[in-house]
Amino acid sequence: MLVDGKHFRTVWMEDGVVKLIDQTKLPFAFEIYECNSYRDSAQAIKNMIVRGAPAIGATGAYAMAQACLEFKGNDMKRFLSFANEVARLITSTRPTAYDLFFAVDFVKNAMRETKYVEHAKTIAIEAGNAYSDSSVKRCETIGSYGEKLIKDGSCILTHCNAGWLACVDWGTATAPMYKAARNKKKFFVFTDETRPRSQGARLTAWELKQEGIDHAIIADNAAGFYMSKGDIDLAIVGADRVAANGDVANKIGTLEKAIVAREYGIPFYVAAPLTTFDANCKSGKDIPIEERSEEEVTMMTGMAQDGSLQSVQVTSPGSKARNPSFDVTPAKFIRGIITEKGIVKPSASVIRKLLKH
Amino acid sequence: MLVDGKHFRTVWMEDGVVKLIDQTKLPFAFEIYECNSYRDSAQAIKNMIVRGAPAIGATGAYAMAQACLEFKGNDMKRFLSFANEVARLITSTRPTAYDLFFAVDFVKNAMRETKYVEHAKTIAIEAGNAYSDSSVKRCETIGSYGEKLIKDGSCILTHCNAGWLACVDWGTATAPMYKAARNKKKFFVFTDETRPRSQGARLTAWELKQEGIDHAIIADNAAGFYMSKGDIDLAIVGADRVAANGDVANKIGTLEKAIVAREYGIPFYVAAPLTTFDANCKSGKDIPIEERSEEEVTMMTGMAQDGSLQSVQVTSPGSKARNPSFDVTPAKFIRGIITEKGIVKPSASVIRKLLKH
Repeated sequence: MLVDGKHFRTVWMEDGVVKLIDQTKLPFAFEIYECNSYRDSAQAIKNMIVRGAPAIGATGAYAMAQACLEFKGNDMKRFLSFANEVARLITSTRPTAYDLFFAVDFVKNAMRETKYVEHAKTIAIEAGNAYSDSSVKRCETIGSYGEKLIKDGSCILTHCNAGWLACVDWGTATAPMYKAARNKKKFFVFTDETRPRSQGARLTAWELKQEGIDHAIIADNAAGFYMSKGDIDLAIVGADRVAANGDVANKIGTLEKAIVAREYGIPFYVAAPLTTFDANCKSGKDIPIEERSEEEVTMMTGMAQDGSLQSVQVTSPGSKARNPSFDVTPAKFIRGIITEKGIVKPSASVIRKLLKH
Repeated sequence: MLVDGKHFRTVWMEDGVVKLIDQTKLPFAFEIYECNSYRDSAQAIKNMIVRGAPAIGATGAYAMAQACLEFKGNDMKRFLSFANEVARLITSTRPTAYDLFFAVDFVKNAMRETKYVEHAKTIAIEAGNAYSDSSVKRCETIGSYGEKLIKDGSCILTHCNAGWLACVDWGTATAPMYKAARNKKKFFVFTDETRPRSQGARLTAWELKQEGIDHAIIADNAAGFYMSKGDIDLAIVGADRVAANGDVANKIGTLEKAIVAREYGIPFYVAAPLTTFDANCKSGKDIPIEERSEEEVTMMTGMAQDGSLQSVQVTSPGSKARNPSFDVTPAKFIRGIITEKGIVKPSASVIRKLLKH
């Protein structure tokens, strides 16, 4: 998408260097973060320089390619064993998002075609790029399907950032909005702040502004108020993992929004490419939930009056905090999942069929 | 309650000066704010130096007394007309909390006993103190009734600060916890951060630490996660206004927690003295909801590493925010209201009877 009129992807690889829009600096500064080794890339995932399931997936795929390039020697057996070890390290950075596992496997599987290390390296780079390109295509198609849900005058609620910054381009939850905006539909977006990391207030709001879409940031607490008043027509969020029965793991707080949306009869949609679906997860109960550090709750970084970034404590000193990073929304609260194959019901039989094709 | 071992009330009057624990400074500094005139006191309510429905009520009562003391002359007619004008100014500071209207009326009505300005002044001071003392008594009784809901090993969720800082002493939602702690019950409290002003993370956490009660701060988004996991046994919140049918206006986000609690069969209680009940409000629809400035969402004050207080922007620059400060929880989501007359069902007939006695 555009940043001040120039086209960018969230992640790309150039001469063996993985480049990322630094999402810890946004929205206060737009900087490109360079990962010179696969270890840098893995660390960037862990430290959330890059975040969002599809973007993590693409970065993981590129990190695999980087690792392959870094391998010295011609012994294919040793090469593959190294690749397996690297895959374990990369996938250990974040436990919840399924795309990361999918993407790393995608690169590993692509290399099975050859017996030669040099050829495998070329394949790995091509696989990284192919994964990234197909992610863009998937998101754009999600946009085309989801756009039909948005009417002129719609008011949409979204949570966290399932925007193009969370993907390679277009976004998942935002793709329908960007398609609708290009089709000249007028609509309004409430973006939940999404504490503790405020991806909604920082990243989604920044994206919507860049795309000229009318929006307002609200405290996470206020979504229920607007839903109860009948001000919200539609909710669209992303997903970090979709289980085989249609349960969805997504950013903490998604569950609350989905339950409240159902109470007020507001259709609640999840936008997710098939790379986010985990057929091996029977239900949401099988999805591991990451608990991150309590500093994400107790400290907050923002822009001081002089333009510098300052970290301040925002909670009572000496009190502990708990910080589960995701929650699981049972399928029954979800009206539909917007995928690149169309909008589907979140049920085991539908998902089984979907993943077979 | 105790602050570093010394007993304090949240608000009191001394020689015509209204003294408040400055809640905009807590939890980073403990300071007493002095209001030298009724206009100062009204401004302190407006600026949320003092907040919480019962504490606002007591401050309003004292502000009335201050205004009476400031009146020059002996003309009772002019005095009463001045008192009416002042009452309008004081009650215009915050629109949602009912206690403020109740308290100001309480002082006005007390002065009807006399025909003499000097006597009326004495009555006004006595009425201010009587209101304050009765508020303490009401909260302590709420604590005794509510304490029975807390079992050894209970895990309690609370939202915002309905603690003693929101009252004159004891608190409403916290009073049962303080009573239970004094009765040596062991329990755990999750306190929602309560964005945008973070009263849960700042004030409730600070109170619980002072009282030695085990607790953790969570992002507002995380309450649903813990409820869905069965980790929460009981929710207790305060109220800014209780309508005649049992609908409750309280801090923004209360509605979401109540809906999610019902989904998981978790008893959701509101603790509120009868001064918070508004018989003239038929239902929650009649309660005006204050929308506060967007800076409460976009800016955040916290403690920098050098100990100074810093205000930083925490949202994407150039994006608007919306900031409704309260929401209305329909009676059907509330298991009971803990009052100084016992725990009652939130229904019109029960409340009618309750307010008659």
